[in-house]
Amino acid sequence: MTETAPRPTLEAVAARAGVSRATVSRVVNGGDGVREPLVERVRRAVEELGYVPNQAARSLVTRRHDAVAVVIAEPETRVFADPFFALQLRGISKELTAHDNQLVLLLTEGRDDHARVARYLAGGHVDGALVFSLHLDDPLPGLIRGAGIPTVFGGRPGWHDGDEGVVFVDSDNRGGAREAVRHLAGLGRTRIAHITGPLDQTSAADRLQGFRDVRGDADPRLVVESDFTPGGGERAMRELLARRPDVDAVFAANDLAASGALRVLREQGRRVPEDVAVVGFDDMLPVAEGTDPQLTTVRQDIEEMGRIMARLLLRRLDPSGTDDPPAGVVLPTTLVRRASA
Amino acid sequence: MTETAPRPTLEAVAARAGVSRATVSRVVNGGDGVREPLVERVRRAVEELGYVPNQAARSLVTRRHDAVAVVIAEPETRVFADPFFALQLRGISKELTAHDNQLVLLLTEGRDDHARVARYLAGGHVDGALVFSLHLDDPLPGLIRGAGIPTVFGGRPGWHDGDEGVVFVDSDNRGGAREAVRHLAGLGRTRIAHITGPLDQTSAADRLQGFRDVRGDADPRLVVESDFTPGGGERAMRELLARRPDVDAVFAANDLAASGALRVLREQGRRVPEDVAVVGFDDMLPVAEGTDPQLTTVRQDIEEMGRIMARLLLRRLDPSGTDDPPAGVVLPTTLVRRASA
Repeated sequence: MTETAPRPTLEAVAARAGVSRATVSRVVNGGDGVREPLVERVRRAVEELGYVPNQAARSLVTRRHDAVAVVIAEPETRVFADPFFALQLRGISKELTAHDNQLVLLLTEGRDDHARVARYLAGGHVDGALVFSLHLDDPLPGLIRGAGIPTVFGGRPGWHDGDEGVVFVDSDNRGGAREAVRHLAGLGRTRIAHITGPLDQTSAADRLQGFRDVRGDADPRLVVESDFTPGGGERAMRELLARRPDVDAVFAANDLAASGALRVLREQGRRVPEDVAVVGFDDMLPVAEGTDPQLTTVRQDIEEMGRIMARLLLRRLDPSGTDDPPAGVVLPTTLVRRASA
Repeated sequence: MTETAPRPTLEAVAARAGVSRATVSRVVNGGDGVREPLVERVRRAVEELGYVPNQAARSLVTRRHDAVAVVIAEPETRVFADPFFALQLRGISKELTAHDNQLVLLLTEGRDDHARVARYLAGGHVDGALVFSLHLDDPLPGLIRGAGIPTVFGGRPGWHDGDEGVVFVDSDNRGGAREAVRHLAGLGRTRIAHITGPLDQTSAADRLQGFRDVRGDADPRLVVESDFTPGGGERAMRELLARRPDVDAVFAANDLAASGALRVLREQGRRVPEDVAVVGFDDMLPVAEGTDPQLTTVRQDIEEMGRIMARLLLRRLDPSGTDDPPAGVVLPTTLVRRASA
């Protein structure tokens, strides 16, 4: 069969070029000490035969695979349904490609597959890993530690209890949430509710903390736990309207949940922002600009987060690097005002 | 740093369990000939130390990585923007997970990165590859052949000129297109246009061929080449209305292009289906059900295509397999009637 046609060997290249195996090997691995005319002959033979150097063998010398794994601790279906991941991957992909590193995305159906992912990480197939969307009780961080490869986390890890050397990139979730809630209060709203994300993720917990920083005295019924999805936002909004029909503002923990809340408000005849003002989090386009009315939201630069994660990891992998990368990078957020608040 | 904390070794497990290295190695690699109490002791030590067996070493014995690469010959941005790929990956992911194989998605920024992808494939990191969205002049198939690993292609490869052993999974693009055009003709439409996909992809070329099977005598101005995107469908529809203002039916090569065409028809005051009937291809939800009016389209089971691709590859990789898998599988399509035609 075509795909198993014998692969051209180093020997074949040597014979074609009329040089020794050692010479071919030196040229292919970028080593010095080969005269230019010979280099040229070897290159031509490599091209003519379609020779692909065995990277496993080369890795023994360089100890690099020039490949970085990305692990998203969510089932494959969510990875493709939530534009958050696409944006983060875009930043990662651009940065890795600029440094000729291969992005290796390890997809799973769910948590049961995380042990297999850890085996792959430990198997000598990648130089390091970028890991995100972790939940507090997730066994993945422990498994990855067992794999023993350099890792950068997306989002502040929740298990970070004095663990030195955990490297992460995050947005200022708490500060951004405070700004959102202060904005609503500044509009004169007094019954401000919060639709949270899944509280086993630090991003959601930190946004709730920011809400509490400003509204520590809020009626507990004004806080409804949800899950960062449009459907979850709908359910939470219905619950809120049942608990406190007089609610006059909602801070939703992300734009997708806010879009669900807006649908329920419209369906129940509440005008936005006149009756209920709504603020989201992320500024994910086209979500935030696709709602009716368009969404006031807290912008975080998701693509930039991905880019910085990749950059920190590449710095750690660079053997000539002299400086230690910082343990944590927290990016600022900005309030983007549109029609909903 | 935590992630580079020394990884527990085979020796450490042996010391903890009070057995020899060879015994640990046998237990870890699932070999026989170790007494049950010893197996138990080794397992406990493995667990206590968080030992992860070195898969590279194990692979030398089993010659399997239990990992399959997926390569999509499109830039990363398109992979996440077109739900076609998400559906195909869903089928692939389910099938690979059911057989405890890791899905390794290799993302790229574009064609310049294909040589790097080929190096990764050749590097001993995966057992085989699933490759799709190939364009005719793409160097990827040649590069993958050089990598020398079993491969299954999604879609009939265009370079297939007597090449034996190319394994692929495709839909009946030509038959499906014929059914779409016959349906429009059956509604009494006489000026049926076709918005094609990119004709350097066999799926688009085959759908055009199906259109020609039925309307071989059509005015050439009724065929406009496009690119499978909503924006491309809009531009093609404007071009069609300029060339033949009397057009009364459109067969678009996919649902995304059809959704663009519908927008332009509405904008120009043409009623669908009264003035212009529209048929798409894919039946990709929520695209086909999200248009106004909802789209009549040719359904192909995209997720099932992915599942069958994975299944064919796993059969080829199974050393105990006796039968040769088929070289090509072509799945049937069905016309799904909604309001647009």
